[in-house]
Amino acid sequence: MTDTLDLNGLCSRLLKAEGILLLCHKNPDGDTLGSAAALYWALKKLGKQRVAVLCADLIPARYDYMAIERFSGQFEPGYIVAIDVASIQLFGDAISQYTQRVDLCIDHHASNSGYADELYLDPSAAATAEIIYELVCKMGVELDERLADCLYTGISTDTGCFQFSNTTARTHEIAARLIEAGARMGELNTILFETKSRARLAIESIALSHLEYHFDDRCALIYMTREQIESTGVEASDLEGVTSLPRQIEGVQVGVTLRQQPSGSYKISVRTLPGVNACAICTRLGGGGHAMAAGCELMGGLDNAKQAILAEVERELCKES
Amino acid sequence: MTDTLDLNGLCSRLLKAEGILLLCHKNPDGDTLGSAAALYWALKKLGKQRVAVLCADLIPARYDYMAIERFSGQFEPGYIVAIDVASIQLFGDAISQYTQRVDLCIDHHASNSGYADELYLDPSAAATAEIIYELVCKMGVELDERLADCLYTGISTDTGCFQFSNTTARTHEIAARLIEAGARMGELNTILFETKSRARLAIESIALSHLEYHFDDRCALIYMTREQIESTGVEASDLEGVTSLPRQIEGVQVGVTLRQQPSGSYKISVRTLPGVNACAICTRLGGGGHAMAAGCELMGGLDNAKQAILAEVERELCKES
Repeated sequence: MTDTLDLNGLCSRLLKAEGILLLCHKNPDGDTLGSAAALYWALKKLGKQRVAVLCADLIPARYDYMAIERFSGQFEPGYIVAIDVASIQLFGDAISQYTQRVDLCIDHHASNSGYADELYLDPSAAATAEIIYELVCKMGVELDERLADCLYTGISTDTGCFQFSNTTARTHEIAARLIEAGARMGELNTILFETKSRARLAIESIALSHLEYHFDDRCALIYMTREQIESTGVEASDLEGVTSLPRQIEGVQVGVTLRQQPSGSYKISVRTLPGVNACAICTRLGGGGHAMAAGCELMGGLDNAKQAILAEVERELCKES
Repeated sequence: MTDTLDLNGLCSRLLKAEGILLLCHKNPDGDTLGSAAALYWALKKLGKQRVAVLCADLIPARYDYMAIERFSGQFEPGYIVAIDVASIQLFGDAISQYTQRVDLCIDHHASNSGYADELYLDPSAAATAEIIYELVCKMGVELDERLADCLYTGISTDTGCFQFSNTTARTHEIAARLIEAGARMGELNTILFETKSRARLAIESIALSHLEYHFDDRCALIYMTREQIESTGVEASDLEGVTSLPRQIEGVQVGVTLRQQPSGSYKISVRTLPGVNACAICTRLGGGGHAMAAGCELMGGLDNAKQAILAEVERELCKES
């Protein structure tokens, strides 16, 4: 199994290493990319020649400001480091030649499977970028604007811009230091949080056009047929985001979203407020999840799926009131 | 004119005062209410018997956790303090008997008109709640969970949950202290940022159903007729929020929103990205505003209003490219 490191150990491994390849997870988000980019630029500032970042998927254009140099075989990797990657499946097949032996993993997911030779894990960190901030300071690298931008990106995206309950006092303290170091928080937040794709807006519009309320408006339900989803060309991540909509409506305790799958079945997402158990609702239909976010999948047509899920929602709401 | 105070002066005035009436601005937001409530609870902790909060409008139910005691004439006000109120017009007529002589104003709006006898103004504060935090510490009051909740509410609502560019390193430092003191940030943010009214969602759905793109998709336009607005029963503040939608679409540099007024004319809101001057667009049609947010009002039907504003948008976009 994996050996765990403390911050001193982590620091000495990286200072010693040569030919460092930093690996991100597939479907890269702001934390895996911002953390890897910050570590890349910090190692460059320390005079390392051979450092690069690699991700199985393309890096979305909105992160261009990180100026990530993507690995293209320009050196023989001597030390392979996974950044924010909780399990080996999350690397993606396209980079499997480098994921057979991962020397070090730096992560904040409590669920980390321990696939790397050595692991630095801090589940109390809201983002891996919080760990990289500590590491960069420990390595004696002075923050500059680009480093601050990369770290701010990781922290703000993993906390929904300091909105989610994983945000701690420490998270805010690091944000303060990054703003002092020149992080362009206003511009970054416009890029990261105020921009929606046309496809996302189109599918939201369709979903809202057949919004239904049930059980004295305590439950709101939206659905999207396969035809509607395909007509907008919406990406999976955008579609996932739509599932938070019905629960956001004032007075609604249970938000239900039905998405038709290519097979014709309906994938159902249930989001609840504290006091209503989303997991109990979905478990009775063969699914599962967390107390406030759960899911299941039902065969048959839209009406059958709606009836089945609404019956379970009603059962749970009766329990609560 | 008004005399300006420093923090020591502010502190000594409040420690000395008796029968303190704290006034909020009309259409109260999280900052005026959170700041007034925090000061109320701090003064109570100092042993003051006669303190109360007054606002011309009802306090929205979502702020119930502040447990604000609304003034109902239970004592003769001896010292009247305006909290986060930039000008005398913003009090609202319903409380005009108390706004003729305001002893002290605590504010962060650079535009404060100086109507009060004495003024403590800090335009570098992202929220008046930042000032109240300093004041509470200066008065020697220990933060508790309720105080922290009230102050966190003021700071998070005035910064869009730390997203807007008025957020500073100091803002984050204060947030860290408030979370340490027990601010329930996860729960508060769900109430403050993740909840939309049914009417807001309904008008968004209508507006998005006739979203138009112009000038190689660099401009997005939505409109709402009077009939549509009234059918949803949407409140003014919610309607204002809808104007940010079209500019949020990926690739869009100019977002235009047309809202029909009761008179039949169209109120037009223009929101832009840096590089496109919203004010220039609206000024040429008799309106005005800021570089990235401006407005104007046009008589005549929808088609006329659209034609006129799109012609000016095109002119500005040609200049830019």
